[in-house]
Amino acid sequence: MSSIADKLAAQLGPELVLRDEATLRACRRDAWVVSELDDLEGAPMPLPACVVRPRAVEHVAAVVRACAETGTPLVPSGLRSGVCGGVLASAQSVVLDMSSFANVRGIDSRDLIGSFDAGVRGSDAEARANEQGLTLGHFPQSIAISSVGGWVATRAAGQFSTGYGSIEELLLGVEAVLPDGSLLSSGPIPRAAIGPDMRQLLLGSEGTLGVITGVKLGLRRLPELRRCAAFYVKDMASGFDAQRGILQAGWSPVVLRQYDAREVARLFSPYRRNSDALLLVVHEGPREKVEAEAAAVARQLLGAGCEEAPAAATEHWLKERNKVPTFRSFLESGVIVDTIEVAAPYSHIGALYDAAVKRLGTIPGIWNGSAHSSHAYRSGLNLYFSFAVQPKDKARLRASYHECWSAVMESCLEHQGTIAHHHGIGRVRREWLARELGSAGLATLRALKHSLDPLGIFNPGVLLPDVPG
Amino acid sequence: MSSIADKLAAQLGPELVLRDEATLRACRRDAWVVSELDDLEGAPMPLPACVVRPRAVEHVAAVVRACAETGTPLVPSGLRSGVCGGVLASAQSVVLDMSSFANVRGIDSRDLIGSFDAGVRGSDAEARANEQGLTLGHFPQSIAISSVGGWVATRAAGQFSTGYGSIEELLLGVEAVLPDGSLLSSGPIPRAAIGPDMRQLLLGSEGTLGVITGVKLGLRRLPELRRCAAFYVKDMASGFDAQRGILQAGWSPVVLRQYDAREVARLFSPYRRNSDALLLVVHEGPREKVEAEAAAVARQLLGAGCEEAPAAATEHWLKERNKVPTFRSFLESGVIVDTIEVAAPYSHIGALYDAAVKRLGTIPGIWNGSAHSSHAYRSGLNLYFSFAVQPKDKARLRASYHECWSAVMESCLEHQGTIAHHHGIGRVRREWLARELGSAGLATLRALKHSLDPLGIFNPGVLLPDVPG
Repeated sequence: MSSIADKLAAQLGPELVLRDEATLRACRRDAWVVSELDDLEGAPMPLPACVVRPRAVEHVAAVVRACAETGTPLVPSGLRSGVCGGVLASAQSVVLDMSSFANVRGIDSRDLIGSFDAGVRGSDAEARANEQGLTLGHFPQSIAISSVGGWVATRAAGQFSTGYGSIEELLLGVEAVLPDGSLLSSGPIPRAAIGPDMRQLLLGSEGTLGVITGVKLGLRRLPELRRCAAFYVKDMASGFDAQRGILQAGWSPVVLRQYDAREVARLFSPYRRNSDALLLVVHEGPREKVEAEAAAVARQLLGAGCEEAPAAATEHWLKERNKVPTFRSFLESGVIVDTIEVAAPYSHIGALYDAAVKRLGTIPGIWNGSAHSSHAYRSGLNLYFSFAVQPKDKARLRASYHECWSAVMESCLEHQGTIAHHHGIGRVRREWLARELGSAGLATLRALKHSLDPLGIFNPGVLLPDVPG
Repeated sequence: MSSIADKLAAQLGPELVLRDEATLRACRRDAWVVSELDDLEGAPMPLPACVVRPRAVEHVAAVVRACAETGTPLVPSGLRSGVCGGVLASAQSVVLDMSSFANVRGIDSRDLIGSFDAGVRGSDAEARANEQGLTLGHFPQSIAISSVGGWVATRAAGQFSTGYGSIEELLLGVEAVLPDGSLLSSGPIPRAAIGPDMRQLLLGSEGTLGVITGVKLGLRRLPELRRCAAFYVKDMASGFDAQRGILQAGWSPVVLRQYDAREVARLFSPYRRNSDALLLVVHEGPREKVEAEAAAVARQLLGAGCEEAPAAATEHWLKERNKVPTFRSFLESGVIVDTIEVAAPYSHIGALYDAAVKRLGTIPGIWNGSAHSSHAYRSGLNLYFSFAVQPKDKARLRASYHECWSAVMESCLEHQGTIAHHHGIGRVRREWLARELGSAGLATLRALKHSLDPLGIFNPGVLLPDVPG
């Protein structure tokens, strides 16, 4: 009996089916810090049977069928910049590396629709839109290391989402190979009432319900004007309330980001003032809108007790916003760091922030437990926690990490929060998903999964908690 | 063996389980003109076994379980203002009349979340929000005769959706009894990345996947200012393009509606000018935004060759917008009338309009085939066709009706349109759904349906085409 790798190589040609150890190692996982730690500690590293780099939708369908016939686990992956363990190959699985399927299918400058193979790198998609005076309006910190298909699979949100919307509001059409090998193609649709939205099945599916092969995104014209502002805020709670006031008054700045004093000290030291929090504001759009909005928002914030800070702080953020230290360098020093993003209604967000920061502060070896808000809505906003913890004993890195996650997840669930704002569930949040969705919600998700992937071979171990027993 | 009605009466009390013929007749169907015609022509009228008027979620769950145990078809209904045949009871089915479950659960003026039993009448929900200086921002023409749960079930869009979004953008949380009797409760969530969005399963489900029992909607503060404008447009195509220019420049008027010359003559005769189309514009929001937007949009429209029309035309529409003639009066004169809303990208919408109007014009006995656009997006817009046809022989009413529907549906599918913008599928569009969704899309929808409702008792005959056999 030939192996799945032999079978696929025979079918697709050996150049698409890679089996060298370097490729298997490089493509077996995403950027989850726990996988990084495993590698650093020399934990056993199960390698996939092969990595397939499809160049056409038919290649993807062939891989899906071959995996179904042989019951082989299939791990779809984009550029593997995820930080939740959404990509982690088991032994003898097949990894689909969609980075090889990366053509821009078209940029329609009349309907403002960009059509992309799923593997197109975000920054490449943006560059191609820019050539025609257009923009995606979607700027995740990972834009240079993530793919448009990955954005859909993980339900991403970009840094400008407060004005431009998150990926679900930008996604006009999706194409995916389903577990039965069929090709789902939905949209581009400006808006429709044709039953449950098929695009929504793939949004956030994290590789468990199909392989996303194509994405159509709504584009925007490059804005006529951008204006930056920044404000000092006495404390996080009053800043959250000031943000609420702006959005509920009907304004829509593209960016509202509020850093707590710890993060101001770490990231904005030239602009630090006492223990103030710092609120960054970016306005974009037609000149008259930007001017009206900037004036009104400033008036509103000053009226709410905020004080003007140098706009250079916001410009600094714009320049530096996508630079992230590697997990590896911290781990080598015996420190484990991570970020955790959650969201909650305004009525609960202040208490959630306080509870999580307080709890993080009690964890032995904690260096930092801090947060900023980065995406705001009329009904609530998100918090993006950062932690760094250095246990006395390096052997406790994993336990300390879990304590930090538990601190934030428990605080979130106690204060009406939702456990993931834009990184997804992956492996790291699975244990809390049942409490988020409730028993009927979880059962429904399992039913969906079973109906589309009855063999359970699509990205097992991700999103859905294991069935107890 | 006791009947399902006896069983339910014993369980819930006879006051919730109605069996008198007047109630059975009144609650057996929605406002679909074909049902109206059936009644007028004295077609056999299958009556449900009973109508249940639940007053609590537990009552709904009890009905669902009783229907599952006995394999009885269950027809969930709101206020039955739908016009697509989404509610039409078969003999011995159970109709759930959610109009009895109509408490406002709460209006949260801090987080701007309105929480409602599914049966709350739209205008009642709006009135309760208004009491606190808030608004739903969702104004379907049916607002006084439809329920908030019905809006979710049919994927409704309101007249102000161009600025405020359609129901899927307003829906923060949903509660539903699923076919297995379990209670799904999702949200309120400002935004999340926790797998496929469970709320989206119910949006557009048209009673086939569960009974919606509760709805949480995002609210807005009543706008500081409203400003109306109107413009003459040479022809429909240039007006569509002018609308495109407004939205793609980054403006968001709450209303953009463009009537063709036939509709101007019929609905706006005092404002008629030659064979011009008429574009209505409404701006709402903070004063400075409205002023900047109104000036910029007017400048843009005049630059695109539109000419100013009396703003009174728009004010006239605002006053008269929810008055609709009854189908019945037309049918009694041997005329069948209906509306058909579709949507398409800008590149195709002009051709779609031309093709559909032309085809409608060839149908024997046609009085009117016209359209207006009423919801615009960055990538495209909707068209809302109206037709009235009077066949020589009254016996041909049904055939003429189907010819009109075919004319619009075929034109839509030939020109990259989506077959339903905001009325849903119901019974009237089922035959075209396969072409809309494609074979994989339809198979996926069937798989979802089967996984949640394996007995197939939830609103059979709606949304999904019959399996060919």
